[in-house]
Amino acid sequence: MTEKSLNKLTASEIVSDIAARRTTAEAVARACLDHIAAREPQVEAWQFLDPDLVLKQARALDASGKVGALQGVPVGIKDIIDTSDMPTEYGTPIHKGHRPHIDAAVVALTRRAGGLIMGKTVTTEFANRHPGKTHHPQDPARTPGGSSSGSAAAVGDHMVPLAVGTQTTGSTIRPAAYCGCVGYRPTWGDIRCHGVMEAAGSVDTVGLIARSVEDIALYRDVLLGVTPQPMVAQVAQAPQALRVGFCRTPFWDQCDPATQKSLEDCAVQLAKAGASVTDVTLHDDFKRIDDAHRWVSSFEFARNRAWEIDHHYGMISETLRNNRLKDGLACSFETYRESRGFLARMRRRMHDVFNDYDVLLAPSASGEAPLGLNATGNASHCVLWTSTHVPCMTLPLFTGPNGLPVGAQLIAARNNDRPLFEAARWVMQHGV
Amino acid sequence: MTEKSLNKLTASEIVSDIAARRTTAEAVARACLDHIAAREPQVEAWQFLDPDLVLKQARALDASGKVGALQGVPVGIKDIIDTSDMPTEYGTPIHKGHRPHIDAAVVALTRRAGGLIMGKTVTTEFANRHPGKTHHPQDPARTPGGSSSGSAAAVGDHMVPLAVGTQTTGSTIRPAAYCGCVGYRPTWGDIRCHGVMEAAGSVDTVGLIARSVEDIALYRDVLLGVTPQPMVAQVAQAPQALRVGFCRTPFWDQCDPATQKSLEDCAVQLAKAGASVTDVTLHDDFKRIDDAHRWVSSFEFARNRAWEIDHHYGMISETLRNNRLKDGLACSFETYRESRGFLARMRRRMHDVFNDYDVLLAPSASGEAPLGLNATGNASHCVLWTSTHVPCMTLPLFTGPNGLPVGAQLIAARNNDRPLFEAARWVMQHGV
Repeated sequence: MTEKSLNKLTASEIVSDIAARRTTAEAVARACLDHIAAREPQVEAWQFLDPDLVLKQARALDASGKVGALQGVPVGIKDIIDTSDMPTEYGTPIHKGHRPHIDAAVVALTRRAGGLIMGKTVTTEFANRHPGKTHHPQDPARTPGGSSSGSAAAVGDHMVPLAVGTQTTGSTIRPAAYCGCVGYRPTWGDIRCHGVMEAAGSVDTVGLIARSVEDIALYRDVLLGVTPQPMVAQVAQAPQALRVGFCRTPFWDQCDPATQKSLEDCAVQLAKAGASVTDVTLHDDFKRIDDAHRWVSSFEFARNRAWEIDHHYGMISETLRNNRLKDGLACSFETYRESRGFLARMRRRMHDVFNDYDVLLAPSASGEAPLGLNATGNASHCVLWTSTHVPCMTLPLFTGPNGLPVGAQLIAARNNDRPLFEAARWVMQHGV
Repeated sequence: MTEKSLNKLTASEIVSDIAARRTTAEAVARACLDHIAAREPQVEAWQFLDPDLVLKQARALDASGKVGALQGVPVGIKDIIDTSDMPTEYGTPIHKGHRPHIDAAVVALTRRAGGLIMGKTVTTEFANRHPGKTHHPQDPARTPGGSSSGSAAAVGDHMVPLAVGTQTTGSTIRPAAYCGCVGYRPTWGDIRCHGVMEAAGSVDTVGLIARSVEDIALYRDVLLGVTPQPMVAQVAQAPQALRVGFCRTPFWDQCDPATQKSLEDCAVQLAKAGASVTDVTLHDDFKRIDDAHRWVSSFEFARNRAWEIDHHYGMISETLRNNRLKDGLACSFETYRESRGFLARMRRRMHDVFNDYDVLLAPSASGEAPLGLNATGNASHCVLWTSTHVPCMTLPLFTGPNGLPVGAQLIAARNNDRPLFEAARWVMQHGV
C-alpha cells in the first residue's frame, strides 16, 4: 500500500494500486468521501455529490474485474458538462434540477476507462464570471478562481485526484494555478465537446486539472479515446537542452512583483539546469488579441444563450448582462468576423514564434488567489494562448507572499501537447 | 393576397403578407398543415408534428402584434436539433421519446424572429448514412437524400418554406438538390451549433433549405442574430462580369452524363449572359481530401457517440457500425491529426483558388435522386467544399432524364456568403 492516505494518491497511483490489489475502488472512494465530508462545509466545491451513488459505482467497478486506464479514479466533472445520472445546472438557477439523459463524450470516455464520476463541481454562471459558492481551499476568504472553480478547489484540496473543467479565456489555468494544481488546456479541437455547454465555440476547450503531469498525460489519452501512452522514465537532464522562451507577455505589468520575481528566478534555475533560456518579446500585434478575443467570445456567447435571454432574462446575473452579453449584443457581425479573422492570423504568427522555442514560460495568473468571493481573478494571462489554440499548462512551482500557490505557465506549439508534458515534468524538477 | 396558395409562399412573401395584414400566421399554418395532411402518408418527412401545437404557436404569433423578420413563417427543424416543446430523437431508437429542456440556439433565434417551429423533420441515424422513413416527394420509390432527408422533402413538397438541416459531408446540399430546393451550407463557424448534435465538429455546420435565394439570405441573418439586410434589387446583368470558375472536380466521373451536359450548358449560358467563365482544374492534392475528411469525421464521430456505443451498441445500425464507427475506431490519433492538418492546409489552398473567381460552378450531386430507400446517394460532390469550410449553395436549375430535379452547386470563398447569394440569384436567372 502506498503510504499516502488514499485521497492523496494521484490517478496513476490509484490505478497501479488497484491493479496490484493493494486497494480497491471502494476504499479510494470512501477515503475521498470522508475527506470531502470533513472539508466541504468550508470549501463548497461540489454542486452535486451523492455518496451512495459514488459507492454504488465504486462497488460495480470492483466487481467488474477489469483494470481500465483510470480504474477506480474519482473524477470531478464541471457542472456545465452533461451526466446521465446527476443533474447539470450550468451554474444558474435557470437550469436548477435539470438532468441530461446521456453523458457528454468526455464523461462516457472517463467511465469507459474505469473512472468513477464523483460528482459535479461548482462552475461560475454559464462558465462566465459571476461566481458560484466555492472558496479557496487554503483561505476561505479568497476565490478559488473560475470558471472551473469547484474542479480546481476539489483537486487542490485532495478531494479527488482529477477533475474536468473548460476554458474559454482562462477558466482552467487560472483556478488550477490559484489552487496549487497542475492545469492543462489542450490544443483546441483535440477533445470533443459534445455534451459540454458551448460558451464560445471558436475558443472553447475542455481543460484538465490534476496533481501531477503524468496524470494529465494519462487522462488526455483517455479523453482522446486512444490507448494511453505512458510517459517515458524521469529525465534528469533537459532533453537536448530544452529551448525555453521567457515570455513576459503584454500583461506583465498586471503581475504582482513577487510573481514577476518568481518567474525570473525560475528562468535562471532552468538555465542553470541546462535549458537554453532566452527572452521572447511578442510582436505588438499580439496586444490586439485581448480585444479580438472579447468580441469573438462575446458574440458567440450571446447567440448561444438565446433561449435563456428570451425566457429567463431576469434570472441572469447583472455581471453577465452588463459585460459578456452586452458586448455580444453590441458587436456587429462584421466586427465579429474581422476579429475572428485576426485571431486566425495570430494563430499562424504564434506558430512561427515556436520555430525557436520548445516551450514558452509565462505567468499563469497575476499572483496568489485574490481576496473576496465576488470575482474570480484576472484572466488576462491566458488570453494569448487560448486565442491562438496552443496547448498550455500551469505548474504549481511557487509560493506567494501569503503562503498560497502561484503557478508558472508553460506553452507549446499547436499539436505539441506530448512534448509539452515532457518539458513540464522537467520544469517541475528544475524550475525552483 | 398573393395568388399562390399559402403553403407555396416563400418566407419573404409570408412576412410581407402578414405585415400588410393580407394573411395571418394561423392561415399560413393551416394551409401548410392541410397540405401535410394530404401528402405526409406518401412523403413521411416528419418525425414529429403536432397540429395543435402548431396552431397554438400561430395564434400566439398573431396575437403578439409584432412583425418579426420571420413572422409566421413555418420552419422544419431536423431532428438532431434540440427543441424544448417537441421530442428530439437523432434518428435512432436509442433516443426515442427524448425531450430536451431548452431550444438549440438556432431554434431560439428562429422563434425570436417570429418563426413558427412546425415540427421535427426526419434525419438519418445520427445524421449519418442509415436512412429514415422519408421518400422523395416526386417519386416515393426514390431517396430524398440525406442526412437532412425530411427537411429537404418538406421544403421540396411545399409543406414548409424553410427548414434547418446540418452538413458534415453533403447532408444539406445533396438532399436539397434531389428535392429541387435551394440549399445552403454557410462558412464553417458562422452559425452556432449549441444544441445541435455534434457529428464531427471540425466540419459540422447547420445548413438551410428554402425555395428561394432571398429566403436563405433572410434566414441566415436571423440565425446570425443580426438585423436582416435585404438583398439589393434584382440585377439583370452580371455585376462587373461575374468571374465563374467551372470546376468539374475530381469526382466528375461519378456524375451522370446528363448532369455533366446540364452543367456544361449552364457554363455556356452564363458566359452568354455576360459572366467570365473559365475552367478550373484543382491541384492533384485536393484528391486526398476525400480520405482526410473520412478520417477526421470518423474519428470525431466515434468519440461523440461514446455513450451510445457503450450503452446501446446493439441498437446501432450495421451501416453505421461497419462504416463510420469502424473507421473512427480504427483511426489512430496520429492519422487523425495529420488528416486534420492536411485539411487546414487545403483550406488555405482553396482560399487562393478564389483569387481568380467570384464563384465556382460544380455538381451538387451525381444526378437525380437514385431509386431505392436503403441509401441516400453519393455525397462525394460536397466533400471538397465541406472540408475547406467555404460557403456553398445548390440551385434547382436542371431537370434530369426522369423529370426530377438536378442541382447546380455554387461555391464562394470563406466569408463571402453574401456575394455568393448575389451571384446565386443571378445564376438562377441566367443559368438555363
